[in-house]
Amino acid sequence: MNERIKKQLEFALEIDKEKNIFRQTSLSGKGRKENDAEHAWHMAIMAYLLREYSNEEIDIAKTMLMCLIHDIVEIDAGDTYAYDEEGLKTQKAREDAAKERIFSILPEDQKKELISLFDEFEEGETAESKFAHAMDNLQPLMLNDSNDGQDWREHNARAEAVYKRHEMTQRGSQVIYDITDQIIQKNIEKGNLL
Amino acid sequence: MNERIKKQLEFALEIDKEKNIFRQTSLSGKGRKENDAEHAWHMAIMAYLLREYSNEEIDIAKTMLMCLIHDIVEIDAGDTYAYDEEGLKTQKAREDAAKERIFSILPEDQKKELISLFDEFEEGETAESKFAHAMDNLQPLMLNDSNDGQDWREHNARAEAVYKRHEMTQRGSQVIYDITDQIIQKNIEKGNLL
Repeated sequence: MNERIKKQLEFALEIDKEKNIFRQTSLSGKGRKENDAEHAWHMAIMAYLLREYSNEEIDIAKTMLMCLIHDIVEIDAGDTYAYDEEGLKTQKAREDAAKERIFSILPEDQKKELISLFDEFEEGETAESKFAHAMDNLQPLMLNDSNDGQDWREHNARAEAVYKRHEMTQRGSQVIYDITDQIIQKNIEKGNLL
Repeated sequence: MNERIKKQLEFALEIDKEKNIFRQTSLSGKGRKENDAEHAWHMAIMAYLLREYSNEEIDIAKTMLMCLIHDIVEIDAGDTYAYDEEGLKTQKAREDAAKERIFSILPEDQKKELISLFDEFEEGETAESKFAHAMDNLQPLMLNDSNDGQDWREHNARAEAVYKRHEMTQRGSQVIYDITDQIIQKNIEKGNLL
């Protein structure tokens, strides 16, 4: 086995650990919490199916890959809940160290490519990254709404914070933001959001 | 919300159930069994990273999407273990009914598109489907090898059956088949495969 494919397979095995990183979102049917790999899989398919609603034209292969890899750093850094203010303060430093360690397992060219794609997602300035963020927001919103806002109630989430997060959704897709807005309003009325 | 996006979101919510379909493969580190969504996520990333080893040139967006959706029918049909001879007899009928029910949730154009992609994977005749099958085989082989052949031992798997399955790997990628062959030989020597 040559050195290049050995590194690629080592990386493939390393990212298996993402299946053990659990999020704060419950599966539909009030199931267990979902993990990062499942979340990324779901987002990538949704990006494909809903791509017609992107505000700008997107490269769908790039967007799907971005969705698939955007949480790999959480293997080391753990999941930081979107509304956890303390965790959010140290998130960047934890994720930067993780990014360097994990992507360095790959051959140099693929390390550079994936770090660049990861950074592009984080920066959220390109059409693909804006739409990927819209999916990153819509996917848990959809599950949470299907569970009658269970996760929001558990965390005493505030509508204001949810709207703040969904500013990113609007930058990616006005159509999806409008639906998001309807869902948030419904959950405020139900008392699921403060 | 218009009818089209309503159907798309209903489908997105429906496929959440794939996270509850467990396979016979254990996660690395002798972890729990993995589920279909995690497996599909892993395969899609591996397809991207290893695409240079495909025997034929492939459209990577199509290949990744094929990996992501190839097990959706198991929401109804359940997972059929690769070496379960009884289950394999009824697999096609169970999966055909599931395919019709689940993809019919989508708008007609997307239903047709995804069924066509699903069928293309099943038929295994195009470059993309052959490479996707190579990933479908390599991903559990890699995990199983990392766990010292635990899943094979649990099922008294026979090397002959494993080689039979990996004929498909060779059609997708000779390079990956050569590595597969090394891994199988190592596990025969260790007594993990009969």
